[in-house]
Amino acid sequence: MNQPSLAVALVHSPVLDRRGDRVTTAVTNLDLHDIARTARTYGAKRVYVVTPVAEQRALTERLLGHWREGFGASYNPDRREALALVETVASLDEAIRDWESVSGQSARPVLTGASRSDGMSFDRCRELASRDPLLLVFGTGWGLAPELFERGWSVLSPIRGCGDYNHLPVRAAAAIILDRLVGRK
Amino acid sequence: MNQPSLAVALVHSPVLDRRGDRVTTAVTNLDLHDIARTARTYGAKRVYVVTPVAEQRALTERLLGHWREGFGASYNPDRREALALVETVASLDEAIRDWESVSGQSARPVLTGASRSDGMSFDRCRELASRDPLLLVFGTGWGLAPELFERGWSVLSPIRGCGDYNHLPVRAAAAIILDRLVGRK
Repeated sequence: MNQPSLAVALVHSPVLDRRGDRVTTAVTNLDLHDIARTARTYGAKRVYVVTPVAEQRALTERLLGHWREGFGASYNPDRREALALVETVASLDEAIRDWESVSGQSARPVLTGASRSDGMSFDRCRELASRDPLLLVFGTGWGLAPELFERGWSVLSPIRGCGDYNHLPVRAAAAIILDRLVGRK
Repeated sequence: MNQPSLAVALVHSPVLDRRGDRVTTAVTNLDLHDIARTARTYGAKRVYVVTPVAEQRALTERLLGHWREGFGASYNPDRREALALVETVASLDEAIRDWESVSGQSARPVLTGASRSDGMSFDRCRELASRDPLLLVFGTGWGLAPELFERGWSVLSPIRGCGDYNHLPVRAAAAIILDRLVGRK
């Protein structure tokens, strides 16, 4: 199989909070670092940080600047290499457009979530990844808002552990999903 | 296969820094939360936070208290359930002794690291996990110090992504390894 063409989107809006209300979460430095390092390890080509809040995008760009061009770049070149994948965008649609222009093909968004029962298997997702550039979409907070699941995009089965408890951090979920799709065992 | 008997140790000393010097790292709140949630999802029974620094253990206990008995416990019961697995200990030997007393059997430490070439396969590790209680040992900083690899314990093969870049956060490595060992695909 050819190396699949993968990108990751980390969505800060629209997502749910613990009460199930629709909210916009804040971008966290740690999510950027963890998900960029994991994405780089598994050969993903882009990590889109999705937030409609212009100040949050500006803050994200400042953080990235430190590691990509500032002191952090020479202090930790591995970190620079990972964070070079990150793009800040205002919406998921903007992420899709950018990923299509980067990959030169029509991209397939794949939504993830812990509570879906309508998702495709990991085997099926690997199959799709061998044909189309995928955009793996992760929600912060308590997960992607329902309206995103109404757009006809593909959905991936939830990760199942060993019982009913299923509260993985988004950073862990992204790592596990990338490993299942492209990791060499 | 029976549900394997697993525990996780997160080692803050002895570990390496980026120059390869032997150091003691600080406990971070985020490591506790992420690794405890992942461990709980995959049915691990204990998460040992290993640091010889008494003040760091006291600080860790305070953080845990907030989520286990304080405001956090009622605010977020799922978090409480995950953090209930965490024990602070002064050394890896103390973690092994505690895990043996909890599991009632002789425990097998399994060291992890990104740069080992002497590790066993994940298949082999799954086999061992079906017989002995395993203690999966993760290093913070730039990884477990060499002296730990001289104690005759088992070593797990590194996680490989899609190329030469291999700088996974310890939080991601723990998630991927637990998923490979016990996740239901």
